[in-house]
Amino acid sequence: MRENQKSKVRSQELKKGIFISFEGIEGTGKTTQAKLLSEHLTKKGYKVILTHEPGGTVIGNRIREILLHVDHREMSYMTELLLYNAARAQHLSEKIIPALNEGYIVITDRFTDSTTAYQGYGRGIDMQLIMSIDSIATGGIKPHLTVLFDLDVEIGLKRNKGINKVDRLELEDIEFHKKVREGYLKIAEAESERIKVIDASLPLEIVAQKVEEIVKWRLEI
Amino acid sequence: MRENQKSKVRSQELKKGIFISFEGIEGTGKTTQAKLLSEHLTKKGYKVILTHEPGGTVIGNRIREILLHVDHREMSYMTELLLYNAARAQHLSEKIIPALNEGYIVITDRFTDSTTAYQGYGRGIDMQLIMSIDSIATGGIKPHLTVLFDLDVEIGLKRNKGINKVDRLELEDIEFHKKVREGYLKIAEAESERIKVIDASLPLEIVAQKVEEIVKWRLEI
Repeated sequence: MRENQKSKVRSQELKKGIFISFEGIEGTGKTTQAKLLSEHLTKKGYKVILTHEPGGTVIGNRIREILLHVDHREMSYMTELLLYNAARAQHLSEKIIPALNEGYIVITDRFTDSTTAYQGYGRGIDMQLIMSIDSIATGGIKPHLTVLFDLDVEIGLKRNKGINKVDRLELEDIEFHKKVREGYLKIAEAESERIKVIDASLPLEIVAQKVEEIVKWRLEI
Repeated sequence: MRENQKSKVRSQELKKGIFISFEGIEGTGKTTQAKLLSEHLTKKGYKVILTHEPGGTVIGNRIREILLHVDHREMSYMTELLLYNAARAQHLSEKIIPALNEGYIVITDRFTDSTTAYQGYGRGIDMQLIMSIDSIATGGIKPHLTVLFDLDVEIGLKRNKGINKVDRLELEDIEFHKKVREGYLKIAEAESERIKVIDASLPLEIVAQKVEEIVKWRLEI
């Protein structure tokens, strides 16, 4: 009886979907891990949408082009912050919220914590201001679960070299990326219920297994 | 002696520049009037920069393309609001503030009041929220003088046809543009010190003359 009630509640929750974000600095392998988790959950019969930020929509991808273009070095921090939030607002309204309402598991490669880590801890933009814009852009929507892939900055940047085209943010010096990593860890500490940290220096298969365990445990699926 | 002191104060103010915005619905002729005023003041020996929103910078123009693209009908109101503010933040930091610091008269075709009128009164986005994002994006910077070109909506849209390419906002129905016009008039009423209203149905030359008079009187130049 109790178990039945629990199942009932769970299926009602599932109807409203599950929202998972993957976070971390460059080169942690989070994009690969997001794909693996998506495949794993799809095989298990769940409806899954895999998406990313900045982007995830046509308009979001146009904003992403502006944000990451190497020629746009004159971009002010405030412009950058507002553009990330604009892409996020579109991502939520056009893709994430409709999918959650249809009961999908939505896995996004980056979400709000990226902005807090990069623009807040990295750039040093006032945290109150970052939270204020975030609450406007997201309407307070947060992932049910966030997996933070933690990795030494030097290793991450080395891993990333040759894999992706260099973008504007990667041109920042190593100190910037260190501040971002430290920022991520602070965010995870402050929100330990929502955010689980994984050591991304472990082999890919081990990391994938840990991700599956966390998702299974945290979301009871 | 008194007159000398006044001149002194004035030249000190001029060192910090003068910031003028032109506002109004489509088809009021404000873009033409901005050019005429710019030429008039340049002839009088002032250093003038004529600019516009959304745009005014390379990054701003990229944002403008996203905002006005007719295919982007799925854009959420919040995305739109954040994009306008992102373009404005860049416009201020890269162009307007440096020019004002060098003592220029900056004339911008549209600024914050456009957002309040179109997104606030037109779209119905919460005014408190609009003001909150504005204060973040602009740091509270307002024009010293705003000229509002007021015109009947039907006349404005008819005038505009054939002159410019139709953009996403012009596809809105006539009721939207009427709300925007009414919104502008409310903003002008609430800030009658800063905003001067001109009847844009008058002949071009008469309007130009009125603009010159207002600028001369308001800015004591």
